[in-house]
Formats: sequence, structure tokens, C-alpha cells
Amino acid sequence: MTTLEKRPTAAPDWSAAPTPDSPEAWLARAREVRAILASDAAARDKAAETPYAEVALLKDAGLVTLLGPTAEGGGGQEWPLAYKVVREVAAGDGSVGQLLGYHYLWFWAARLVGTEEQIAAVEADATRNRWFFGGAVNPRDSDVQIRDEGDHIVYSGRKSFSTGSKVSDVTVLEGVLTGTDTHVFAIVPSDQPGITFHDDWDNIGQRLTESGSVTIADVQVPWEAAAGFVDRTFQPRVYNTLNVPTIQLVFVNFYLGIARGALEEAIEYTRTRTRPWLHGGQERAVDEPYQLDLYGDLASKLWAVEALADQVAEEGLAIHHDAAGVTEQQRGEHEVRVAAVKARATDVSLEITSTVFEGLGARATAAALGFDRFWRNVRTHTLHDPVAYKRREVGAFLLRDELPEPTWYS
Amino acid sequence: MTTLEKRPTAAPDWSAAPTPDSPEAWLARAREVRAILASDAAARDKAAETPYAEVALLKDAGLVTLLGPTAEGGGGQEWPLAYKVVREVAAGDGSVGQLLGYHYLWFWAARLVGTEEQIAAVEADATRNRWFFGGAVNPRDSDVQIRDEGDHIVYSGRKSFSTGSKVSDVTVLEGVLTGTDTHVFAIVPSDQPGITFHDDWDNIGQRLTESGSVTIADVQVPWEAAAGFVDRTFQPRVYNTLNVPTIQLVFVNFYLGIARGALEEAIEYTRTRTRPWLHGGQERAVDEPYQLDLYGDLASKLWAVEALADQVAEEGLAIHHDAAGVTEQQRGEHEVRVAAVKARATDVSLEITSTVFEGLGARATAAALGFDRFWRNVRTHTLHDPVAYKRREVGAFLLRDELPEPTWYS
Amino acid sequence: MTTLEKRPTAAPDWSAAPTPDSPEAWLARAREVRAILASDAAARDKAAETPYAEVALLKDAGLVTLLGPTAEGGGGQEWPLAYKVVREVAAGDGSVGQLLGYHYLWFWAARLVGTEEQIAAVEADATRNRWFFGGAVNPRDSDVQIRDEGDHIVYSGRKSFSTGSKVSDVTVLEGVLTGTDTHVFAIVPSDQPGITFHDDWDNIGQRLTESGSVTIADVQVPWEAAAGFVDRTFQPRVYNTLNVPTIQLVFVNFYLGIARGALEEAIEYTRTRTRPWLHGGQERAVDEPYQLDLYGDLASKLWAVEALADQVAEEGLAIHHDAAGVTEQQRGEHEVRVAAVKARATDVSLEITSTVFEGLGARATAAALGFDRFWRNVRTHTLHDPVAYKRREVGAFLLRDELPEPTWYS
Amino acid sequence: MTTLEKRPTAAPDWSAAPTPDSPEAWLARAREVRAILASDAAARDKAAETPYAEVALLKDAGLVTLLGPTAEGGGGQEWPLAYKVVREVAAGDGSVGQLLGYHYLWFWAARLVGTEEQIAAVEADATRNRWFFGGAVNPRDSDVQIRDEGDHIVYSGRKSFSTGSKVSDVTVLEGVLTGTDTHVFAIVPSDQPGITFHDDWDNIGQRLTESGSVTIADVQVPWEAAAGFVDRTFQPRVYNTLNVPTIQLVFVNFYLGIARGALEEAIEYTRTRTRPWLHGGQERAVDEPYQLDLYGDLASKLWAVEALADQVAEEGLAIHHDAAGVTEQQRGEHEVRVAAVKARATDVSLEITSTVFEGLGARATAAALGFDRFWRNVRTHTLHDPVAYKRREVGAFLLRDELPEPTWYS
Repeated sequence: MTTLEKRPTAAPDWSAAPTPDSPEAWLARAREVRAILASDAAARDKAAETPYAEVALLKDAGLVTLLGPTAEGGGGQEWPLAYKVVREVAAGDGSVGQLLGYHYLWFWAARLVGTEEQIAAVEADATRNRWFFGGAVNPRDSDVQIRDEGDHIVYSGRKSFSTGSKVSDVTVLEGVLTGTDTHVFAIVPSDQPGITFHDDWDNIGQRLTESGSVTIADVQVPWEAAAGFVDRTFQPRVYNTLNVPTIQLVFVNFYLGIARGALEEAIEYTRTRTRPWLHGGQERAVDEPYQLDLYGDLASKLWAVEALADQVAEEGLAIHHDAAGVTEQQRGEHEVRVAAVKARATDVSLEITSTVFEGLGARATAAALGFDRFWRNVRTHTLHDPVAYKRREVGAFLLRDELPEPTWYS
Repeated sequence: MTTLEKRPTAAPDWSAAPTPDSPEAWLARAREVRAILASDAAARDKAAETPYAEVALLKDAGLVTLLGPTAEGGGGQEWPLAYKVVREVAAGDGSVGQLLGYHYLWFWAARLVGTEEQIAAVEADATRNRWFFGGAVNPRDSDVQIRDEGDHIVYSGRKSFSTGSKVSDVTVLEGVLTGTDTHVFAIVPSDQPGITFHDDWDNIGQRLTESGSVTIADVQVPWEAAAGFVDRTFQPRVYNTLNVPTIQLVFVNFYLGIARGALEEAIEYTRTRTRPWLHGGQERAVDEPYQLDLYGDLASKLWAVEALADQVAEEGLAIHHDAAGVTEQQRGEHEVRVAAVKARATDVSLEITSTVFEGLGARATAAALGFDRFWRNVRTHTLHDPVAYKRREVGAFLLRDELPEPTWYS
Repeated sequence: MTTLEKRPTAAPDWSAAPTPDSPEAWLARAREVRAILASDAAARDKAAETPYAEVALLKDAGLVTLLGPTAEGGGGQEWPLAYKVVREVAAGDGSVGQLLGYHYLWFWAARLVGTEEQIAAVEADATRNRWFFGGAVNPRDSDVQIRDEGDHIVYSGRKSFSTGSKVSDVTVLEGVLTGTDTHVFAIVPSDQPGITFHDDWDNIGQRLTESGSVTIADVQVPWEAAAGFVDRTFQPRVYNTLNVPTIQLVFVNFYLGIARGALEEAIEYTRTRTRPWLHGGQERAVDEPYQLDLYGDLASKLWAVEALADQVAEEGLAIHHDAAGVTEQQRGEHEVRVAAVKARATDVSLEITSTVFEGLGARATAAALGFDRFWRNVRTHTLHDPVAYKRREVGAFLLRDELPEPTWYS
Repeated sequence: MTTLEKRPTAAPDWSAAPTPDSPEAWLARAREVRAILASDAAARDKAAETPYAEVALLKDAGLVTLLGPTAEGGGGQEWPLAYKVVREVAAGDGSVGQLLGYHYLWFWAARLVGTEEQIAAVEADATRNRWFFGGAVNPRDSDVQIRDEGDHIVYSGRKSFSTGSKVSDVTVLEGVLTGTDTHVFAIVPSDQPGITFHDDWDNIGQRLTESGSVTIADVQVPWEAAAGFVDRTFQPRVYNTLNVPTIQLVFVNFYLGIARGALEEAIEYTRTRTRPWLHGGQERAVDEPYQLDLYGDLASKLWAVEALADQVAEEGLAIHHDAAGVTEQQRGEHEVRVAAVKARATDVSLEITSTVFEGLGARATAAALGFDRFWRNVRTHTLHDPVAYKRREVGAFLLRDELPEPTWYS
């Protein structure tokens, strides 16, 4: 019996439901998924089981193909909606929100670095087959080497982190051609003898993201599947480097989703279960002046960062719409804005997930309620790269007209 | 010789220029006005002269008729743009930004409470004649009484605050029909024997807003000019009560404009004049890690609140587009969102205007530079009503489903 | 094999060592205890075993009799040192710091409410026998009733929380004489048939404090052991009500200890294990400007609250030295100061325990390191009573000359 | 007629009163001075008159000789009390608090760098004659050169800042022996032809400190008055470098004094003049929950930093008591602690002086009340050196065991 089967809130049978055909309808679908996930998120956090059922839920709900072509049954939607969907799902379960967000990025990898033919083929296959994407990328550790064997290339090595790959259908693999600085990305089946997951992700937060290490042993990829290579040569363009702002906005949105989850669950608890203070003279917790102040303050802070996240996503959309023409200046200014919202989302999601306890009250620290998972989740992932460098990126642009240098990693 | 004539940056002759015909063009126009105002804002703050020249500048630039009908030569634009224009102007001079924002609200007063005929007449007259509006409203002090003399009504009393009225063409007058709870608004010429300005606004900030007290002595208004009255009876509808969220968004936007003015002037100064720290090992201030961190942090915070201000303005627009149908629930939820952005704009504009000094350095405290005016300006007006009650409004909605009660004042 | 026996850092044999005879020597002893506790605190947090070994450690080190009379082998020390000892122990293990702090308060209970004879007897017995004290008090829930049976009284009921009682030798019991408002405190053996611990403390923090519920069934106490009763009548004096400021300062000090533990362990980790940022150009984490800024900021904040905690403890000492003469005004002003330091300790310990992660970096989120326990610990106990009411107490004193009303609970 | 003569609160005739003979009595004296200064501080801030009368007040009250030997009529007190006196005076008038604090440092200059004979002579003369000290030091600008003319040395050049010198009896002069790195300090009469004050201190805060620039033209000093020189050679010891922590603690204490002045004047105003919010349902401002929260929060923050300032002053006293033996390690660790309290005092004094307005309400922005001066005062002087470097000093000590390098300037 899977975790999903035991869920208090069961998933509907979406196979009979029409595919959502508007952003609003997709958001409604995402909220259904959120509610299902929220109903046992605390228990699953504790259990830390591999989230097969949760990925199945994302597939059943149609969310994994949100960005896929409608001709193949995809949603045909754009990034701003994808980010909002990530936010909703993360409000229900931070780990699953992260898995979905990373999936969208890997799904988009072909667009970022692939040729026109590769893009078309990947999107069709991925959409038709509802592939869930994982990644073994993290180019911070250059420890996957690639041998060139003529018709094909062969990946071997180890990645410290491979978010979602274990529960995925396909994995975006990254390595360096031995003796060069050339990174090659390719999409490979996740379930193959050359890929071994070490199940060693045991961290204080985002516990269900299957972000453990992976060994790659002689994984063979035909040269024609090397993303963006034509005649074994990569033709760079600015759009290739959109990976960082695009995934950083994924981060932002699941942080905000987790914060919203914390805030809304806390509000519900305070309305129904928190007691007024013994000596305060109020009969209901919701009449305590400090409660009104606290929730008003936290919600205001969240709303501001959400608004910036939405605005920056729209700015990014203009770039995605002009993948061929985007300039370094445009890309750089966009990354600066992304850095800003990353900094704000980090601060505000940490503040909210820690401070809601003052609204909840002492009894809400019972381990069974699991209210600490929100803070543990944002605290864990917001360390992906130092937030101080995000503020610095913004400052360097304002004081020195400096654009962030594109990298493969944050 | 007026202050304007002495300006380092002279106003162009806009009478020959085409009226801007897009939001972008209007914003460009507003930025021209901002630059002119910024060039001597510190000196004018010190002098605290009556801003006749500045109001003339707003008229010359066409900004006063931004919301007026195009048929009469107005811009035909909407509130979201008006707010952004207020923000730009306030970045140049906080007082003038406030004057313009209040003008927009008083210009809109007919729409809020008037009959269809009154709206049409006021908008045509105001646009054709480029009226600048002031107000003697502030219903916190019920100290203007109205006598009903049959065909006309007669206002007498005193208002503690009458922002902009002294430099205006027309004033929105408010009073209470003696012996009743009925407030009556009317638009009257500002320059008339019955209206006496006491020039007693000498406050630490927003010094040029002419917000002093005024005495109203037997100002006569025909009944047909009593806004919204038909057969001497006012027909209330929800839209009448949009005054508070609409003016509160004006507040938000000039706070944000002042903050942006402070931030951008500080950046310019730090780039060109601030010295690196003696013992820090940097050759330029812009290479100091603390400078990069500081400006990156402040800009990120500002951008988030600006984004929320924009988003809430769009939400308000939907209500303005449906003045006849807006429900109490819609109005209330909008006011909650406005309260949230007010709370954030207050905190962030205070933080920015105080903290930029750490980027500026000690020499920037010279009185001649006047960098303290930004903080004095936001500190003064953000006390208009207690920000704590804004957080409380948001909290009461979230915890108790409570909608803010409409009032005539904040 | 107990947890203690497995400890990486073994406890020395203090039985041969001389009893510390100065505050400095006691603090050195407390630091030894801290080091022992810290060496496996993360593992014990996860295991959540009953802390028998840890209480034994506190006894072996002589800390439990710190406040006891030297004539009986106690340390003869005062509260300001006791608070500092709590801080040191809490730096090693927040739960054990809380247990020790509560012990000091219960040890002191006789002084607060007892007669001269009771005080002398309890202090002698407790010191000679190295009693560890627990409590089943929490008068928030008036759910222990007392029957008067002539020579003795009989307690029956249930307490939701009974910190440390399960691992204690004696328990301070509290109840209400049925049909009256009279609270009666008495010290009873913890291990007796009428006291049943339910082992239901499973919370996100302070996991080893054994704070679960307890059932009291017909626990008999002779009238002469009813603390402070003479001829079955309680003679109140102001000093009885010192329980709240005294225990609140205990809280403050273990919050500060936990914060210091987090900060110092983080510093050690950053010095030895944290990597510099990939793209930052530094070779060591300790050269990152953001690291210097972060730790400098957090340490400064901690030091300020520690200094206030020390100052307020000295203020309290003057009251303890004048138990017979303390006035309501003196007591009230002291409680106001305690409220202030409680508010600061709450904010700062939460900030430090959450923010040190930015110095630690992503890999420090590994569950095995358990760095989240510091935040979970302070987050849990700082909800004991709403911190908002502490700020309010301070404000009411300053604005209204109002003294906090003494209560049995916070 | 001087400003002093017009004062609403007149100075008593202290010449007949006994010299205070305990710290408590000195603090009571300082509070009398504070009350006199506070009574017209807002008016004097506006007038920006040269503070001759205020310096006379400090002399009349005996505060200028607080640190002088009792044998000569001085108070014979220590630095911790001097800091508290600075705090009290600054609470009444930030500028005068700064003048007094700088005076104490210059008075102490002989102790820091002089020979035993010089120390004895200076302290006797200064105390007997109630000298008020100014300084033309600021070694950031090495622009005063010294010619060696055999028996005497001759100072010529310019100092950008010379706090208090214009209103002083004697000035501590600093320069560099031409062609060397040797700084020479000497005490010279302030009123002499070679010293010209340019009266160019016109800054937004600390307006009465007479911190303008000064020209030094051929000011002659006998070699035997060159502080610390024996046979024209300076014998360095660690204690010479105590200037920075000693003056930085002066800064800390007048920041805290200004913050306390702001807080206490605001409390008084709120108790007596602030109105409750129109729609809040309270009859008195002091019953507003937000008011209680606000003042409780601000006072708690202030108290914590005051406590740290007191604690660090005591730590410094141990060094002053061992001037001959202080090591670099002791000095360095003290400066780290001073840096920490400087960082906290900066943040908290800015927060308090800006935020009290939310308790005061809108009408308190009247220029005549001058409530903005508190913020302007701390905002101005807290830029003396970048506070970011204070946090960095603390961080570098914790992460790298690094001691701050002694300098002549901050």
C-alpha cells in the first residue's frame, strides 16, 4: 500500500476530467494537488519515503506536461504559470514542489541548449509519455567525465546531488569532455544499469526530494543526443545561459509556496485551535491584538515578494519569447532582478516559517503536527548558494553596472 | 523671479510637444519632471516657499490632466499609470509628488460620489482648464458645518489640514449638514473671500505641500453642485467608499517614489563621491563589500514593494471599471490588500531613507546636500494614520474574515 | 549501557575533585559539563531517551547543589551564577539546561513560599541527598484538587506538563484546595504509586525535558509540609510572587545558552569545514566578507542580551537578599526588566539559531549534524507564554506606570 | 543675553553645592544638567549657535573635572561613570553630550600617551582651571605637518574637523613630523593667533558640536610638551593605542543617550498629548495595543545595549587600571567588544529615534517640537566610520582569531 492510498484526502480520477485550458483552471488543478499533499505532508516528512506516489500524482493531475505542446496533450502554458503551479504544490509539500520545479527546468533543458530538432523531439516524447525529469547535473563538482568514442560519448563519474532522478523517467546528465572545458548535456533513461542511486539524502529539510548522490558508470549517449551539438561542436548563444535565472526563479517560487503553506495552515490552526492568553482578557485567540498584528505583518511581507516573483517571471517570459535574440545585457538585467527576488524570498520565507509559531502557540510544537517542517524545508534549500551573493549581484549592477557572469551553477 | 526660473535644470517648452499617447510616453514625461524637481529639491525644502512654480510645472507637463478625457485634451489614462507618475514625481520631490497624488484623488472625487451629470461636467471643465485640485476635507475633524438655505448650502468652519488648496484652482470642500450625519462634498473655487489659508504648515517633512489649516466662512454652493445629491438626497453605493483605498494607494506610491529618489541619488553619490574606508583596502567605495551588500539589499526590498503596489493598483482598476457593480466584499478585499502594501511601503521607505546614509558616508551629512529630507518626508506622512492599524486590518481579514469598515478618513 | 557511557567525551571523576569554591571555578565546572553534553547532543536529540544519565552527570558535577548551603556540602552560590551555569549547560544541550534551570527554581520553592523551618529542612535534605527536583505545577490548568483530611491533605488530578519530574527525586506538587482559591505547594517523592508519568512529551524541541503529562492519584501530604502554611493558613508576602521573574530569568538564560551553543558550534564548523563560495574568489570560508559580517552581527546581538541578562540577574539578587522587605513596586519593576530581557532573548536566540546556517552552508543541513536542534529548542520553549505580552508589560509600565500583576504562571 | 539665560529651566547655583562624592550623586548632577539642556534643545538645534553657554553649564556643574584628581578639586571618578554621565547629558542634548565625551577623551590624552610628569602636570592644571578640551586631531587627514626647530616644534596645516576646539580652553593638537611617520600630540591654548576656526560645520545633526575645520599656522610647542616624548623619542606601549576603544565607547554612550532622550520624551508626549486612533475604540493613546507593543519593544532593545555598554566599560576599566601591563591581546579583545557594542548602539539608536514617531503620531512632526533632531543626531555621527567594519572586526576575531590593528583613527 503506497502512502498515497492511505491519504485522508484522496486524489480524484483526473483521467476522465478535461485538461485545464486556462491558467485559472490549471491553478485550480494545482490547488487540488496541494490539498491532497497537505493532508499527510507532516507524516510523509517523518517517514521520508521515496515519493513514487507523489510523482504519480503530479502525472495524473497533468502538471508534469504543463509546458508541453498541446498537440501532444500538453498544457501549452508558459513559465509564469509554471512558477505559480510550483508555488501551489510547494504550499502542500515543499519537497514535491521542488521536484516539480526541477522537472520543469530539466524539461526545458532542450530548449535552453538543444537544436531545433532536439527540442521538437524531446518535447513530443516527454509530453506524450508524461516523462518525469530528474537531473544529475550540479556542475559545481566537475566529477563526471565524458569519453568520446566516435559515434557516441560515454559518461562516468559521480554527482553529489541528483534531485528527483531516482523517481524520474529520464535524467538530464551533465559531464565534461575529458581534457576539455566542454560541458555536454544529454537526456538518458533513469532506470539503467549504469546509474546507481545511493539513497544518501538525509537532511533536515526537503526530505522527499531524493537529492542524494549518484554514480554514473559508462552511460552511453549517441552524439546526436548531445544537446546543442552540431557536428560535435556546440554553438553557444546567450539563451543557453538562461538556466540560472530560470532555476533560481523555481527556487524562489517553492520558497514562497512553502511560506504560504506555513502561513495558511497556521491561520487555520489559530482560528480553530489556538487558545487566547490566560491573562490577556480575550475570549478567542483571533481577537488578540498581537495575533492580528502578527498575521497582518507576515501576510503583507509575503504578498510583496509574491508580487515581485510574478513581475520578474513576466520579465523572464519576454526573454523566453525571444530566445534567438536575447542579449547579454537583457539576460544580465534579468538575472539581477531574479537575484533580488531570491534574496527577498529567502528572508521572508525564513521569517514566516519561524514566526508563525507565535501565532500557533505552545501546543503546536507537538511533533505530530510537524509545523517545523516549513522552516526546515526553506532553511535547507535556501542554502543552495549563499544569499549574500545575490544581494551582492544586485549591488554590483547598481554601483558598477556589472552584469552577473553566467555560470552553469547559480 | 520664481524658484523655477533659477532651476539648474530648466523645464523644456512642452506646449509645442505632442501629448504623450502611451503609458511609456507619460512615464518619460514624468521622468523629465522628476529631473527638473530633483535639481533643486534640497534648496526648496530648506526655503519652504509656496510651490506655485511646481504646480505650474505639473500643468505645463500635462500631468494634471492625465486622468482627464482625451476629448477635452486629457490623457485618458487610468489609475495604475497615475500611481506610477506620482511615484516618479515624488522621486524628484516628495512634496510635489504628494500634491499631484492628492490632486488626482480630488479630480476623481466627482467619479466617486457625483452623479453622471456632475462627473461629465467636472471632468470636462477640469481638463479643459487644467484645474489643479486641492482639498479641505479631512473628515476626522467634523468642524465644518453646512447650513441649508434652500437653493444653496453654506459652508463655515475650519479644517486643520488642507493639502494643496492654497496653490490650487479649485478645492474639494467637505462639511456636515448641521444637525445631521450627512457629509456633503462640493468643488469650489479656491480663490474666494470665504476661504482663508493660515500658512501654518511648518513640519519636519513634506514641507512644500501647503497642508496648513484653513478657515471657511460662508462659502456658498448651489444644491445642484452638492456631489451625488439628487433632490437633496444622497444615493449611496459601495463605490462612494473607494476614497480610502484610492488615496491610500496614492500615499503608498509617493512613499515609494521618495524611497526610490533617496536610493538612486545615494547610488549616484556613492559612485562618484563616497570614499572607501581608510583601513579597508579598497580603492573605490563601489568595491567595498558592505556597499554592494547594502545597496543590493535596499534595492531588493524596494522592488518587492513596488511590485505589490503595481499589482494592487491593477486590482483596484478592476473595481474602477465596475463602479456600478462593486460589492462590499470586493471593496473590502481590495482595502485589505491596500493596507498590506501601505504597511510594507511604510517600513521599507523608512528603512531605505535612513539606511542609505551608510552608503553615502559621513560627509554626506552636510546640510547643503539635504539627504535627510527623504527620511523626513516619509517619516512625516507615514504618520497620517497608524500603520499598526493597517497590519491589523490585514490580520482581521485573515483571522476573522472581517472587512475594513469604510470611513471618510483612512 | 546508558547514553552517557557511550559518550565520545567522557565525564571525569569529580568525586575526587574539590568542590569549586568561586564563581569562576563553578563556571569552569559547568563548561566541562557542557563539553560532555555537546559531544552527543545531536544524537540524543534524535533518540529522545529519558535523560537519567544526564541528570546523574549534573549531580556528579555538583551543579544540582550549587545553591545549597555549604554546611551541607552545597555550593552556597547565588542566582546570578546559577543563571550563568544554566546558560553554559544549555549551550551543550538545551534540554538539560532547562532541566537544571527548573531544578533551581523548584529547589528555591521553599524559599519563595515556605516557612523558616521548612526552608531550613528542605535545603539541608536536598543538598545532603543531592535531590534533583521536578515539578507538577503549571497552575494554568487548575486540575489538581486537594482534599483536606484533617492531619493531611490529598492531591488528585492531572497536570499537562511536569518538566523533569520523571527523572527527579522529588517533585514540587501544586493544587487547589477544593472549593477554595487556595493553592498549596508541597515537595513529595517523585517515585510513588500515586504519581504516574504518561511519557507523552513528543515535541519538536527540548525533546529530553520529560515535560509530559502526569496523573496524581491520592498523593498524601501532611499539613506541616504544606509550604508556607502555619495553622493551615498561608501568610502571603510579596516575595512569594517572585516565582515568575525568577523562572522567567531561567528561561532567558537557557535560550541564551542555546543561542551561544549554536553560534559557537557554527563558528567552529565554518572555520574547519565550510567551503568558500565557488564564484566568490576567496580561498577560505573565513575570508568571505559575508561570513565576517554575519558572525560579527550575530555575536554582537547575543552579547547585548547576555549583558542585560546579567544586569537583571543582579537586580534580582538585591530582591532575594531582602525577601522579607521587598515591596510590590520593587517586585513589579524587576518583572518589567525581566520581561524586557525575555523579549530580547526570544528574538535574538531565534535569529541566531536560524541564521547561523548562512554561515554553515548547504552541507551542514545533513540530519546527522543536527544543527536544526538549536532552533527547534528555542522555538519550542519561547512559546511558553506569548512574547507579545512581555513587550506589553514593559510598555504598560512606561506608558501607564502599571506593574505586572503577580500570577502563578508567567 | 545668552541662550542659557533664556532657558525655561534655569541652572541652579552649583557653586554653593557640595561636589558630588559618589557615582549616584554625580549621575543626579548629570540629570540636572540634562533637564536644563532638554528644556530648549529643539530651539538651540534650529538656532545652531556656538555653545558657549552650554560649555559653561558643564563647568558650573562640575562635570568637566569628573575624571580629575580630587586633590585639585576633581571628581576622582572612573571611565564607567564618565560614560554614564555622557549618556545623561546626551539625552538632554546630543551635541553637548558629544562635546563632553570628546572632552573626557582629550583630558585623558596625557594618560594615553604622556610621560608620568606630563600626566601629573596636565591633570593638575586642567582640573584646577576647569579647562574644557577640544581637539584638532583626526589623523585620517595627515595634513598637519610639524617642523622640528630644536627646542620646540611648530605645527602648520589644516584639519577638516576639530570638534569642540572653538569653545575650548585648550586643544589637543596632532601632526606628523615632516618627512617621518611620527605623530606628535600636544596640548595648546585654543585661543591663539595661530589657530583659526572656519565655522563651516553645517550638518544635518550634532549641529552644536563646532566640528568645523581649523587652520593651524605656526603654532609653537616646546619639545617637553610633546606628549610621551623623552629626549625627542617616543616610547610606545600598548596603552597608547587605547584611544580608539576609549573614544568609540564615548560614541556608543552618546548614541545611547540620544536614543534614551528620544524614547523618554516620546513617552512623555504620548502620555500627555498623543490622541488615540479615531477608529480604534480606545479612549487614551496609552491604551492602544500598538503603543504598548511599540514602546515595550524599543525600551527592551535600548536596555540590552545599555547593559552591554556598561559591561564593556567595566572591561575597559581593568585595562585603564593596568596601563603599564596591558597586552596586545587584551587590548584587541577589548576593541572587539567595543566594536560589537558600537554596532548594536548604531542600529538600536537609529531604530528608536526613527520609530518613536509611530508612538508620537502625526501632529508631533511639527517643526517646533524638533523630534527629528534625535534621528538627525545619531544618523550624523554614526557615520564617523563605517559600522560594517565594526561587525567585520567582531567576525574576524571569531573566525580568524584576528585582533583589530591599532590606528590613530577608529
